Amino acid sequence: MNNQDFQNRISQISSRLAASGQELLLVTPGADLRYLTGYDALPLERLTCLAVTAEGKSWMIVPELEKPSAIAHHIPEKGIELLSWNETQNPYEVLAKSVGSKSKVLVNNLMWVEKAWHLQDAFGSKASLANDLIAQMRAIKTNAEVKALVEAGAAIDVVHSQMSKWLKPGRTEREVGRDIANAIMESGHSTVDFVIVASGPNGASPHHEVSDRVINTGEPVVVDIGGTMPSGYCSDSTRTYVLGSAPSEYLDYYAVLQHAQAQACLAATTSNSCEQIDAVAREILTGAGLGDYFIHRTGHGIGLETHEEPYIVSGNSQLLQNGHAFSIEPGFYIPNKYGARIEDILVCVDGKGVSTNNTTHDLVEL
Amino acid sequence: MNNQDFQNRISQISSRLAASGQELLLVTPGADLRYLTGYDALPLERLTCLAVTAEGKSWMIVPELEKPSAIAHHIPEKGIELLSWNETQNPYEVLAKSVGSKSKVLVNNLMWVEKAWHLQDAFGSKASLANDLIAQMRAIKTNAEVKALVEAGAAIDVVHSQMSKWLKPGRTEREVGRDIANAIMESGHSTVDFVIVASGPNGASPHHEVSDRVINTGEPVVVDIGGTMPSGYCSDSTRTYVLGSAPSEYLDYYAVLQHAQAQACLAATTSNSCEQIDAVAREILTGAGLGDYFIHRTGHGIGLETHEEPYIVSGNSQLLQNGHAFSIEPGFYIPNKYGARIEDILVCVDGKGVSTNNTTHDLVEL
Repeated sequence: MNNQDFQNRISQISSRLAASGQELLLVTPGADLRYLTGYDALPLERLTCLAVTAEGKSWMIVPELEKPSAIAHHIPEKGIELLSWNETQNPYEVLAKSVGSKSKVLVNNLMWVEKAWHLQDAFGSKASLANDLIAQMRAIKTNAEVKALVEAGAAIDVVHSQMSKWLKPGRTEREVGRDIANAIMESGHSTVDFVIVASGPNGASPHHEVSDRVINTGEPVVVDIGGTMPSGYCSDSTRTYVLGSAPSEYLDYYAVLQHAQAQACLAATTSNSCEQIDAVAREILTGAGLGDYFIHRTGHGIGLETHEEPYIVSGNSQLLQNGHAFSIEPGFYIPNKYGARIEDILVCVDGKGVSTNNTTHDLVEL
Repeated sequence: MNNQDFQNRISQISSRLAASGQELLLVTPGADLRYLTGYDALPLERLTCLAVTAEGKSWMIVPELEKPSAIAHHIPEKGIELLSWNETQNPYEVLAKSVGSKSKVLVNNLMWVEKAWHLQDAFGSKASLANDLIAQMRAIKTNAEVKALVEAGAAIDVVHSQMSKWLKPGRTEREVGRDIANAIMESGHSTVDFVIVASGPNGASPHHEVSDRVINTGEPVVVDIGGTMPSGYCSDSTRTYVLGSAPSEYLDYYAVLQHAQAQACLAATTSNSCEQIDAVAREILTGAGLGDYFIHRTGHGIGLETHEEPYIVSGNSQLLQNGHAFSIEPGFYIPNKYGARIEDILVCVDGKGVSTNNTTHDLVEL
C-alpha cells in the first residue's frame, strides 16, 4: 500500500458519495480510517477526523499533539489537507469551517456518539450512517490484503500447532489462556484480540472466554484465538482438542461437524450466495440431528476488523465474490455437556475459497 | 467486587438519573458497562445493552449467543433482568418493549453512533449524552480499585526495570517495542494497550509509537507503555533512557523536568485543584525556558480506561479528591532534536497522591 493506493480509495469514496447523492463523509479513528488513510490513530477523547466530500476534497483534523504522528503516516502526501487544533480550540468548529457548509453528511457507523453529535452541531445538519459506503469497498480485498490475511493465518497456525505445550489436565483455562496470549504475541501479532479456552461444559457457550475451571482428562476443549498483525489484518482460528480420549458419541458428532465444515469450505465459490454456504453446513448438521445445537451463523467477514462484511448467514443473499475474506466455522453446543467448533479463514481467489489456516481439522488428542 | 457492589452502583445511577430529571440510561459494551455490571462484554456488531431507569429497574439485553457469558458474569444475581434476542429479532425493539415508553433518555458517550440511533428509533425519542453521570462515579476509586491500580503499577514497573535487556544501540524501535509488548503480557497484563519507543528526534512527538528507526548511542529514548490487567484496570508509565551518555544541555533540561514532575506529585493533594497541579509542573518548566516545549496537559485520570476523568489540565478547577487516580507526566519536546517525559500514576489517599510506579525517576543510562 503506497500513498497513491490510499488516494485512490479516497477518490472512490468521493465517487460513491456523489453517486448516492451525499455531500460529505466524516470518519473518526478505527478500521474505516485505517483503511482509507493508513493511519491507525488512537481512539482518543480528543477529536481526530477525516472529512471527504463528493467533489473529491479531503481533510484530516488532528490534535496538535498528534500532528507529528499524522505526518509520519504521510497524510499530506495522500492528498489530504492536514488541520490541527490546540487545547483551547473547538475542533468540531475548526473542521466545519474548513470544509464549509454541507447538508447531506454521513458518519462512520462505529463513530462514538458524542463525536457524531458534536459534528452534527458544528455542521448544523443531521447526519446519517455511512453504512455500506465503506463496508462494500472493504469487503473486497486486494492482492496485498489477501497476502496480509495469509500471513495472519500462518501466524495463528503457529500458535495452534504448539497447543500440546500448554493444554494439560490439571491446569485452569486461564493459565492455558495466558500462555496462548504470550504465544500469539511471539508469533508476530501486534495485539491479542481474544483467547477462548472452553473446556468441557464451557464449550457449550460459543463465546466463553477463559475461567478458573480446571481442565480434566477426557474433556473436549474448544480453543478459538486471534490477534492483529502489524499490517492491521486480523487472524481468527478455532480448533477443538481433547485431553486423552473423548466419549464415543462425541467422536460421532465431531465427525459430522468436520464433514459439515469441509463441505461448507467447498461450497465457498462465486457460484453460491453467502446464505447458501451457511445452508450447506447447517443441512449436514441438521441431517445428523445436530441442527438445534448449531446456534450461530456459519461465518463472518474479516480484514482490518475481526467481524466485518460479508456475513455467512441466512438472509444474506449476496453472491460470494473474489476478494471476499471470511470465516467458515460451524459448531455444535450441547448444554451442560460440551461443544466443538472448527474455524478457518478463507479468501476467495479465482472463484473459490482458499483457507489461510492449515493445521489439522481432526479432533486433536493431547 | 461482589454482586452487591455492582447492584449498589446501579442504584446510584438510578438516584442520579432521578436527581437530574432523566428517565433512562442506556449503556453498550465498554468501560462504563464493565464498571456498572462487571461484564466486559465484547463490543460486537450484535447489540448488548444495559438499561437503567430512574425508578431503579434494570435490564440487560444480549444476543442469544452471549447469554451463557452474561449468566457466567452473574448479571441476574446483580438484580438486572436478563433479556436475549435471536438472529431473526430486532433487539432494539425487544429492549424498548420491555423497558416501556421513556422520553428522557441518556446514552453512554462512547456508544457507537449506529447503536445510539437505532435505540433512539426504537424508543421513539431523542437521546442525550450521559456525560458526567457515570464519569463522576468512576473518577472516585474505591479501596478495591486503588488496590487494582497499585497492582497494575507494580506490573508495568517490572517491565521498565528490565529495559536494559532490550534497549540497545543498533536495534530498531520496532524490535525493542516487540520485546516490551511480550514483557507486558508476561508481567501479568491481559492486553498490551500501547508501546511508545521514541528515540532521538522521535522523542519530540509525545504520541509517537514505534518505527523502523535504528537507535543510536548517545540518544535519549522515551518509553511510554501500558496495558490492562485481568482486573480491567490499566497501567501507564513513562521513563526516559539514554544509550550511553546524553548531551550536557539535555541533562540540564532533564534535571528541570525531574524537579517539575516531583513537585507536581507533591502538589497532588486535596488542597489543590487539577489545574493548580498542572500549573506547578508548567511554571517550573517555564521558569527554565522550557514552557513552550511542554505541549500537553500534565495528566489524565485512569482506571478501567487509560484516559478518563479527572484531567490534570488548565481549565479544570475541580479540587483533587480522595479516590482520584491520575497520571503526572510532564515532558519537554524539542523538534528535530529529542524529548523527555516522566510519568507516574498516582492515587489520592488520605488527602495526598501516592505513586503506584516506583522505578527510578533519574535518566537511566544503559
